Amino acid sequence: MIKTPDIERPSADLIDAFDDISSATASGELYRLGLRNPHLQGLTARMPGKKVVAPALTLQFMPKREDLYDVDEYADPEKQLHRHALYHTRPGDIVVVDARADLSSGVFGEMMLTYFKGCGGIGVIIDGCIRDFPKVEELELGLWLRGVTPNFHTQTNIFPFAVNVPIACGGTVVMPGDIIVADDDGATVVPIKLAPELAKKAGEHAEWEDFSRMRLEQGGDLRKYYPLSDEARAEYEEWRRNQA
Amino acid sequence: MIKTPDIERPSADLIDAFDDISSATASGELYRLGLRNPHLQGLTARMPGKKVVAPALTLQFMPKREDLYDVDEYADPEKQLHRHALYHTRPGDIVVVDARADLSSGVFGEMMLTYFKGCGGIGVIIDGCIRDFPKVEELELGLWLRGVTPNFHTQTNIFPFAVNVPIACGGTVVMPGDIIVADDDGATVVPIKLAPELAKKAGEHAEWEDFSRMRLEQGGDLRKYYPLSDEARAEYEEWRRNQA
Amino acid sequence: MIKTPDIERPSADLIDAFDDISSATASGELYRLGLRNPHLQGLTARMPGKKVVAPALTLQFMPKREDLYDVDEYADPEKQLHRHALYHTRPGDIVVVDARADLSSGVFGEMMLTYFKGCGGIGVIIDGCIRDFPKVEELELGLWLRGVTPNFHTQTNIFPFAVNVPIACGGTVVMPGDIIVADDDGATVVPIKLAPELAKKAGEHAEWEDFSRMRLEQGGDLRKYYPLSDEARAEYEEWRRNQA
Amino acid sequence: MIKTPDIERPSADLIDAFDDISSATASGELYRLGLRNPHLQGLTARMPGKKVVAPALTLQFMPKREDLYDVDEYADPEKQLHRHALYHTRPGDIVVVDARADLSSGVFGEMMLTYFKGCGGIGVIIDGCIRDFPKVEELELGLWLRGVTPNFHTQTNIFPFAVNVPIACGGTVVMPGDIIVADDDGATVVPIKLAPELAKKAGEHAEWEDFSRMRLEQGGDLRKYYPLSDEARAEYEEWRRNQA
Amino acid sequence: MIKTPDIERPSADLIDAFDDISSATASGELYRLGLRNPHLQGLTARMPGKKVVAPALTLQFMPKREDLYDVDEYADPEKQLHRHALYHTRPGDIVVVDARADLSSGVFGEMMLTYFKGCGGIGVIIDGCIRDFPKVEELELGLWLRGVTPNFHTQTNIFPFAVNVPIACGGTVVMPGDIIVADDDGATVVPIKLAPELAKKAGEHAEWEDFSRMRLEQGGDLRKYYPLSDEARAEYEEWRRNQA
Amino acid sequence: MIKTPDIERPSADLIDAFDDISSATASGELYRLGLRNPHLQGLTARMPGKKVVAPALTLQFMPKREDLYDVDEYADPEKQLHRHALYHTRPGDIVVVDARADLSSGVFGEMMLTYFKGCGGIGVIIDGCIRDFPKVEELELGLWLRGVTPNFHTQTNIFPFAVNVPIACGGTVVMPGDIIVADDDGATVVPIKLAPELAKKAGEHAEWEDFSRMRLEQGGDLRKYYPLSDEARAEYEEWRRNQA
Repeated sequence: MIKTPDIERPSADLIDAFDDISSATASGELYRLGLRNPHLQGLTARMPGKKVVAPALTLQFMPKREDLYDVDEYADPEKQLHRHALYHTRPGDIVVVDARADLSSGVFGEMMLTYFKGCGGIGVIIDGCIRDFPKVEELELGLWLRGVTPNFHTQTNIFPFAVNVPIACGGTVVMPGDIIVADDDGATVVPIKLAPELAKKAGEHAEWEDFSRMRLEQGGDLRKYYPLSDEARAEYEEWRRNQA
Repeated sequence: MIKTPDIERPSADLIDAFDDISSATASGELYRLGLRNPHLQGLTARMPGKKVVAPALTLQFMPKREDLYDVDEYADPEKQLHRHALYHTRPGDIVVVDARADLSSGVFGEMMLTYFKGCGGIGVIIDGCIRDFPKVEELELGLWLRGVTPNFHTQTNIFPFAVNVPIACGGTVVMPGDIIVADDDGATVVPIKLAPELAKKAGEHAEWEDFSRMRLEQGGDLRKYYPLSDEARAEYEEWRRNQA
Repeated sequence: MIKTPDIERPSADLIDAFDDISSATASGELYRLGLRNPHLQGLTARMPGKKVVAPALTLQFMPKREDLYDVDEYADPEKQLHRHALYHTRPGDIVVVDARADLSSGVFGEMMLTYFKGCGGIGVIIDGCIRDFPKVEELELGLWLRGVTPNFHTQTNIFPFAVNVPIACGGTVVMPGDIIVADDDGATVVPIKLAPELAKKAGEHAEWEDFSRMRLEQGGDLRKYYPLSDEARAEYEEWRRNQA
Repeated sequence: MIKTPDIERPSADLIDAFDDISSATASGELYRLGLRNPHLQGLTARMPGKKVVAPALTLQFMPKREDLYDVDEYADPEKQLHRHALYHTRPGDIVVVDARADLSSGVFGEMMLTYFKGCGGIGVIIDGCIRDFPKVEELELGLWLRGVTPNFHTQTNIFPFAVNVPIACGGTVVMPGDIIVADDDGATVVPIKLAPELAKKAGEHAEWEDFSRMRLEQGGDLRKYYPLSDEARAEYEEWRRNQA
Repeated sequence: MIKTPDIERPSADLIDAFDDISSATASGELYRLGLRNPHLQGLTARMPGKKVVAPALTLQFMPKREDLYDVDEYADPEKQLHRHALYHTRPGDIVVVDARADLSSGVFGEMMLTYFKGCGGIGVIIDGCIRDFPKVEELELGLWLRGVTPNFHTQTNIFPFAVNVPIACGGTVVMPGDIIVADDDGATVVPIKLAPELAKKAGEHAEWEDFSRMRLEQGGDLRKYYPLSDEARAEYEEWRRNQA
Repeated sequence: MIKTPDIERPSADLIDAFDDISSATASGELYRLGLRNPHLQGLTARMPGKKVVAPALTLQFMPKREDLYDVDEYADPEKQLHRHALYHTRPGDIVVVDARADLSSGVFGEMMLTYFKGCGGIGVIIDGCIRDFPKVEELELGLWLRGVTPNFHTQTNIFPFAVNVPIACGGTVVMPGDIIVADDDGATVVPIKLAPELAKKAGEHAEWEDFSRMRLEQGGDLRKYYPLSDEARAEYEEWRRNQA
């Protein structure tokens, strides 16, 4: 019987701390913490408007080599590792898949993702494709994908190789249990060790930004209002007093 | 005068038999019949939600070579082969075009596709682009394309070369008269000789799938409900009796 | 202090003359005036349905070279040239950016584009990405982009190098002050010197096209109605009289 | 029994007329005759120093579709069309193959090309690969290829589909019987109808070029010697008299 | 202290059995044993004429993520895993590296490969680059690479992540200890379990091929001599008697 | 009359200081000075064995736009800017060209490069192609190119736009007058301001490296000899004494 490792999940508090943090804010702050590019490049938000913050289950595909992946053997569905990745699903999880940028293999289809949703899964990120999109769409999961295809997961070039191991996805590394912050800008990986500091920094509300945005909407001068100049600060302080 | 061959069309019954068969089901079943990859890769569904089952008119473009394609000669529109492809349109047809993945040539524009729609055409698949998308959109044809462009069909690199011949499109061969099953997952080519067997196989309704899906939505165990285990089968039989 | 040149803007009349001219019509007519490919290829309309006609502010990025782009120096935001491009914004402007097709740098974010909108800017074209798309979307600017990203403008490979200079964008040259005609087909660059002639030619309303379109919708013969044959012309004249 | 058409070959005189014409001269002159790009792009000269002028046998591959290409059927080698292309070989021929830019199929191997050489073939152009390069190299044929591979011709994605038909190769069209002029710059296709005029134009020896080259080698001024200025012409005339 | 696993090496006899087997013969025979594509695509033989048969040490790179790869930490060279891959070198080994097709990181340089050569290493395969090519060339190792670069191994996008684990290289899987057969056609991976059978099959000398090759060189008919027809067989038998 | 700026050239001493510094050493040291990637990626050394250290003349191409580049106008060769780039040639110069990675335009041909050689030019770097390679090869210039083509410099997509301006080449910026260090590993750009410090650092001869290399060749332990361990240092000191 196949056994694959589970991931360690962050506290609900830590996840909640990212409620108001966009993928853009997360990426910019991670840069300041030393990460050049935490963006999973090449994937598109297929469910516009969705935002997901979740710990990552990971699944790794490899190029198909027929002596390693015996089709007959797979008469037994239990030997298919893409199923095992989903067995670990807990409410609030996201699954992140290195499908090697393959555009002719649908890593998951309707039934797999219905199960994933049933277990409480909230997002799917694949450097590759899903299939059955017309039905999967109705599940209202967050989906960040390279594409969609009618083909099934091992129909052409790849096969599932490992579960909850470090993977490369979209040109960056995702470790099992890292936090993913994903929205319409794309997905940012937040290394789990950096997550508390990042949440703190990014969450410090820049109160004056609301004021600046308002002034810029009114045609205010960028030089004066963003960042806030000394001259504008007095104006802001007064505006703030009036607000209260 | 230019004469191009017509295609042989399947019976309405055969087309109807694909009513409940998605491109994903078609592709998976074709794999079982020996076809590794019947998916036309690289094209995107530009009219989300559309599904089309139709016999394929085909049109082949070639790289432009000015001694073979004399612009003056084309003062006579009748010499433009992309028009001839559309002349064959019958109600329920789809036109499939090898435009060589070109992103700066709009194979068809508003007027051509208005005519196509007027003749009863229902879908357009191009390994390349159309133009006039803002107006074509209103025609509500199924569209699977690599992109859109403001350029016309012979503005840059390619010119129409042959009508209703075997073509390569999205990395697979489409023979004139093959059946295309296309939806939001993309387009699957069904070789006409395999269509009856495929329709039969794919159409055998997996009655237990509705039950499985319901259980998975409720958080049921994938191992138990998909595929249906012996344990779940009894549960399913009872559920089925209750349904009736 | 950094000084960058402004652009010369066309008259409002010239801009208005393009009201009914699509990017497709503009591209086709420019071909007749000798331009092979005035289409900015590779960019996608991210705000479907938007059409923009506007003079181009231009911004050029270069590959990042750390001795030329000193991060510390940029403690002073005034040294960031992407801001200066926006300082020139007048109502009705579009900003066109050569971001070197980079997919991991977000040239502008929410605050910059709020300012741009506040100044009356109406469109953004980038051979590259923006960030903060979930919020930028609400500004209802026309957007033609290669993609979106959570990363900021100098996070990875590029940095802003020059403002209102000739740039390459989507494989064609855009000169500062050229007119851009952009819609869901993409963006066409209209060289400012050719704009008056183009507006005149493209604007000559092909009155018979409305008649042709109607006939084609009804299943009329393409050979008869597009272009209008002698036979159909009589029919058209009669229809026209009846219209009046 | 499979019958494929032969090509019509130009006279030996016409071929000989290209003896001193490089692929670069041929391409430049074809531009003046109206062809924008007669260069087969993407292929590399694998036998440096070889120059070939020859009429083109053509071979077209298509993406593999298993219902069209039955492996068992090919127990009979006579059904393999890549063999038939070679059956037409006459002394002085070149074979040009559209192998769809595939990098994992070796269109011809040692035995096929030994036969080709035995029949008098002198060159091979493939938008794709050969295999057995270590042995093929010894045959001293001109080779212009995208690459080499250990795989055989139908091992992965493609299969031979037609012989001596118009093909696309390296982004241009090659018609059966066109003349190929190939050297270390690459391969230029000379449409057979334009060949006599091209040979005449390109062959008109620019006598002064030898003089110019000599002066440029000596550090002479480009403005004076290339093209030849009036001032330099007198100098050239004198040099020429002294040569005689 | 870092410990990485060694590989299990095949017997010298098994390696020797591949002496006369080219990468092309190996790939073709593996296809008959069920492997569609055992070719490591995208790599070029940088030391023409070299042939190598060797068991594979493997090294895996990952995209650089600065929290996982601390530059300071690497003040201690012992923490650099690309060194550890080479520590396992035994005479006759080849090292195979997944460098993620990166063209701006030189996985090994002169000193590393001098050490590798000193330990008896005979070949290097990298889906990526080496640096110091002008000096490495003199070591006369077999080299199959995507390119060369002046940059060092962690200068840009990647860092060494694991030693002697399964890797993807050139679009196929290489397991530690698999046999690589590489020559100017490229590199073929021979799964260790299939190696004995493959060596046996591929080694069965096709005696009549020498005769066929001779006849084809003389302009003999492909249909008669390859494969050997019944008619030619008698001729071959006589020729063979005369040889002896 | 067209006037283009010349470059400022470094002293002969500074150039000479790079005599023993490879492109690899230069790149590695530049990294230590803060430059992530000074390598001009994507170009191949076409004259193996050549090494060049030289100040850069620069030439920038742009996408062809016919209203900006009037073919008739170019009846006057003096208007062709690629000629002007060469007019500035002084002995020991290299010309670096941003040809936009175009593979169907030969930036320079035999006559231009004969002139360049005649003026003392020693190297050519093009993010694009040259033509007339069979003859250019005889000039024995250092050549780092993306490819070769029979087409001339404005035959397809690009035209020369500016001389001795900052350019992007191979994904990095080259400023006019920067020093290029190029060999078989490729070309490294050395910003002119960093050149003296770099020459000094890179030139500090690592005397012990010769000793280490010798030991590694003999099968010495990498851990002991590279970098030199304390244990090996004593051995090295003795060896050094014996050398003297």
